[in-house]
Amino acid sequence: MKTITTMENKAILLNSRPVGKPTLSDFKFSTEAVPEITEGEILLKTKFVSVDPYLRGRMSDAESYVQPFELQKVISSGVIAEVVASKLASYKVGDFVSGLLEWKTYQTSKGEHLLKIDETLAPLSAYMGVLGMTGLTAYFGLTEIGAPKKGETIVVSGAAGAVGSIVGQIGKIIGCRVVGIAGSDEKVELLKSKFGFDAGINYNTTKDMTQAIATACPDGVDVYFDNVGGKISDSVHANINRFGRVIVCGAISSYNETSAQTGPRVEHFLIKKSVLMQGFIVGNYAEKFPKGMAQLSQWLKEGKLTYAETIVDGFDAIPQAFIHLFDGKNNGKMIVRV
Amino acid sequence: MKTITTMENKAILLNSRPVGKPTLSDFKFSTEAVPEITEGEILLKTKFVSVDPYLRGRMSDAESYVQPFELQKVISSGVIAEVVASKLASYKVGDFVSGLLEWKTYQTSKGEHLLKIDETLAPLSAYMGVLGMTGLTAYFGLTEIGAPKKGETIVVSGAAGAVGSIVGQIGKIIGCRVVGIAGSDEKVELLKSKFGFDAGINYNTTKDMTQAIATACPDGVDVYFDNVGGKISDSVHANINRFGRVIVCGAISSYNETSAQTGPRVEHFLIKKSVLMQGFIVGNYAEKFPKGMAQLSQWLKEGKLTYAETIVDGFDAIPQAFIHLFDGKNNGKMIVRV
Repeated sequence: MKTITTMENKAILLNSRPVGKPTLSDFKFSTEAVPEITEGEILLKTKFVSVDPYLRGRMSDAESYVQPFELQKVISSGVIAEVVASKLASYKVGDFVSGLLEWKTYQTSKGEHLLKIDETLAPLSAYMGVLGMTGLTAYFGLTEIGAPKKGETIVVSGAAGAVGSIVGQIGKIIGCRVVGIAGSDEKVELLKSKFGFDAGINYNTTKDMTQAIATACPDGVDVYFDNVGGKISDSVHANINRFGRVIVCGAISSYNETSAQTGPRVEHFLIKKSVLMQGFIVGNYAEKFPKGMAQLSQWLKEGKLTYAETIVDGFDAIPQAFIHLFDGKNNGKMIVRV
Repeated sequence: MKTITTMENKAILLNSRPVGKPTLSDFKFSTEAVPEITEGEILLKTKFVSVDPYLRGRMSDAESYVQPFELQKVISSGVIAEVVASKLASYKVGDFVSGLLEWKTYQTSKGEHLLKIDETLAPLSAYMGVLGMTGLTAYFGLTEIGAPKKGETIVVSGAAGAVGSIVGQIGKIIGCRVVGIAGSDEKVELLKSKFGFDAGINYNTTKDMTQAIATACPDGVDVYFDNVGGKISDSVHANINRFGRVIVCGAISSYNETSAQTGPRVEHFLIKKSVLMQGFIVGNYAEKFPKGMAQLSQWLKEGKLTYAETIVDGFDAIPQAFIHLFDGKNNGKMIVRV
């Protein structure tokens, strides 16, 4: 075992709380020895690290649904790791696990809150996306809150992102018209060619978004799956139908803002059209995760669901990959392969 | 019958679409002969006229859930009338009815969309308030959308109004802590002494509303029944609990605004706290009206529910009574007795 402990173990700490858009200097690398395991522990070697917009919230110290990261402490997120040493009966060397783990190349675990994953059923990285938190976020947000019925129209913002691209495909499986909003012609093309969206709108080149949505949704908008917030959402709200449902999943457009954002008050259209707006986090549906995983796995197996990932290589690339999320540089799930 | 037709029949027309707060010149009085009824008709004599904030919306020509009133045509609202002549088997002279009727002292009807009401069970005016649309609005909004559980905290804005005062009482019947927001010390006192609210806040004299709500709601806000919108609502949103429900019933603070109002974007707190916001109109629950009426009548009979009305006398006073709604001059339901 002495050979392992002399290996280098890298970690990434939160160096400073970002003001506005995060920069590389908000992160700090450190090196320590690989830890030794004691009875009841396993040693995990990081294989994939998930970088997600919601982490931005944890880098601030404002109250939120999760605790803020501490300064000068290691950051954590979704990680897929391989068991490389085990003193715990339920895990053997060579097992792969998924869990909320630290940004370290090696770490110990008592095996709690880990999910064993099967490399033979789907590629490991899929457990971070379509079969992981992003897939479940899309599935539960759309089906539990949006509850779209066949023939209805769904609009998705951040449509080429990890969650949005799955939302659109589930909408098509249900039999809805699905319109996606994304930030480049390339992404809009991908929505249609790869993910089966009926139409796409490039918000960066469209002058009148309200009119563009009206044109793309001749019967109005019944369900809006909102990943972005801001002015894009104002344009969708303006096209919402009576009894519409707005699934408030993310507001990436405002995550880097240093002051509270203002916009048109929503009460008026909520009353006028008897509209529901519901915010959520995927953890609200934790009891139903097995059901969601089973459904998503089946659709994946049947070829009804495809997914996109942007894989970046190297542990050292994690901070930059995270920062790139806010430039819209990813198609689908942004993953770092270590 | 000739004697009736020579009687004077007054009517109130929409003279101009109000810009901002309505003024008396937006209304016009006209006089015509009392109509004669033909076979299958009844003649109605107006007894009570309901003036309600939502009518302001119908005076504009913007798209809404109901058609705008037409210029130079008679305005309509909730009216209680007496049958004074009948050529319709199902109605006899002396019956009282409630319905959406015109602002006229006399009008004919074929008996459609009228509800016969019983003066011996409750005073006629109650059918316009606690046993009418306002009572049903409070009941369905609170129970169907808010679904408060015993021990939760409910905040009501416009709490001394027709809907708000009933919402608070239903909250107490369910076993919740109920906090009301109103615009004068007199109203706040009424909330506590007459309607049984646990606490009241006068928004006109309170400097830090967010802090005042936090103090009045030591366990946070689980359900917010919103009649007003605007900055008052921002303060309540800031105190909302995880899984909170915001019932968007009215936004009287903005009804007279000539441009769209802006305010803090809501997406952030909706996600952070997994909050639901739902707009509605009482008509959405039309199928359940008999159930709601039965429940409200029972509570009224049991003495669990009381109500306030501001009764103004005289048909000519209708426009001014309506305008006074926007000055907060009413306690409970504003009614004109003709």
